[in-house]
Amino acid sequence: MKKKVNAAILIIGNEILSGRTQDKNIAFLCNWLNTKCGITVREVRIIPDVQKTIVDNILLLSKKFNYVFTTGGIGPTHDDITAQSISKAFKVKYEYHPEAYEILERYYGKKKFNDGRKKMAKMPRGAKLIYNPSSAAPGFITKNVLSLPGVPSILNSMIENCKRFLLKGLKIHSKTINLFTVESNISKQLGLIQKKNKKFVDIGSYPFFRLGKIGVAIVTRSTSLNKLKQVNKDLLNLAVLNKIKILKI
Amino acid sequence: MKKKVNAAILIIGNEILSGRTQDKNIAFLCNWLNTKCGITVREVRIIPDVQKTIVDNILLLSKKFNYVFTTGGIGPTHDDITAQSISKAFKVKYEYHPEAYEILERYYGKKKFNDGRKKMAKMPRGAKLIYNPSSAAPGFITKNVLSLPGVPSILNSMIENCKRFLLKGLKIHSKTINLFTVESNISKQLGLIQKKNKKFVDIGSYPFFRLGKIGVAIVTRSTSLNKLKQVNKDLLNLAVLNKIKILKI
Repeated sequence: MKKKVNAAILIIGNEILSGRTQDKNIAFLCNWLNTKCGITVREVRIIPDVQKTIVDNILLLSKKFNYVFTTGGIGPTHDDITAQSISKAFKVKYEYHPEAYEILERYYGKKKFNDGRKKMAKMPRGAKLIYNPSSAAPGFITKNVLSLPGVPSILNSMIENCKRFLLKGLKIHSKTINLFTVESNISKQLGLIQKKNKKFVDIGSYPFFRLGKIGVAIVTRSTSLNKLKQVNKDLLNLAVLNKIKILKI
Repeated sequence: MKKKVNAAILIIGNEILSGRTQDKNIAFLCNWLNTKCGITVREVRIIPDVQKTIVDNILLLSKKFNYVFTTGGIGPTHDDITAQSISKAFKVKYEYHPEAYEILERYYGKKKFNDGRKKMAKMPRGAKLIYNPSSAAPGFITKNVLSLPGVPSILNSMIENCKRFLLKGLKIHSKTINLFTVESNISKQLGLIQKKNKKFVDIGSYPFFRLGKIGVAIVTRSTSLNKLKQVNKDLLNLAVLNKIKILKI
């Protein structure tokens, strides 16, 4: 029987913390894990390129969650220290991965396979490769930690190659009802519906502005399709009773 | 004398973790703190709307960093539990803030000031208000924790009102040099320059694609403008010696 599977994401990169770069990997990974794998992301952390910080977070998150996805820090420069840090965290050797070395040597050609490029073949001993169809340098999985690059287009191209390493979780169903009202007009009744269904359905409420009007998106999520349908019936009743128009999209 | 001031950001919201919503507050806050306040963001966490998780993170982060910025969870619905959770974390009463109550009652009018809206005036005892010029409901600061809403346009409109609560840190200077090369061609020399200046300057390297060509943005950051200039001289020398073209923008 399938069960709930969860994950954390660890974004490693000074460029995100300085505000220089807008992260795009979090939303992509959360959405992919959620919809394609039935895996719930329970926590995201963004941390600097500092070895001790990476080591501490890898140890903590890999214990707490089924999977940890890291992004960033697996390139050829001095600030790319993810592989070293994971080796240190799990007390395994940081060394050339024979297949990764071969892939990169073939990709660049023997003459152009310099030290920087060779560095991308160094990984924690025992790591398995996550193949990279767009720029060769592979990601890798060490225990339950999957390490991917920070450049979104490259990460996206590799994501399907992560699937074989992941346990598939229970599918999380989701439905959104868009109501033309404001949150405070329905917050009380909404709270009661959530209370009644606390165990099985999560209800979120998010204001929106569309077609020149203000509205609220009510998002329901559950592993049980039946419970979800029941809650959505209650939500439609709430709208009818309060004469609230529903946005059909 | 000014000193280094740091902060953490705590994003509270299931909608970000599910991948439904692309976060925009992290980059905005990081950039604003960095450039306008000389405050370095050292860590970001994204967590679900779960009271225990919020309480644990507030306690940990508020001890570890000079400031904590929370976003999300201060609206009128059942899933808005930031204020309760902060009250619980700091063991203070969760109650109506008289001025916030007054502001909201004036904004909505006595007749339309319903329970949902009243909820937005409830805060940890002793909190000070962060005024909201766009939709009235104020944010608040409790000890060193500043709580802001999750809707980016509203958060942005309030940000200047945070300034009076913040200690100004040392300005962090930053310079970017864009080189038409690939990382692995310069990684060795770049590593040496970083090693030589380890204590005072952070050097990051980020691939880019522009004008149909591949390049690397070398970003240097330091509180010392002199050290920054010295390192950038070294970087320009590195480019000249290796016959690498520089992108002028």
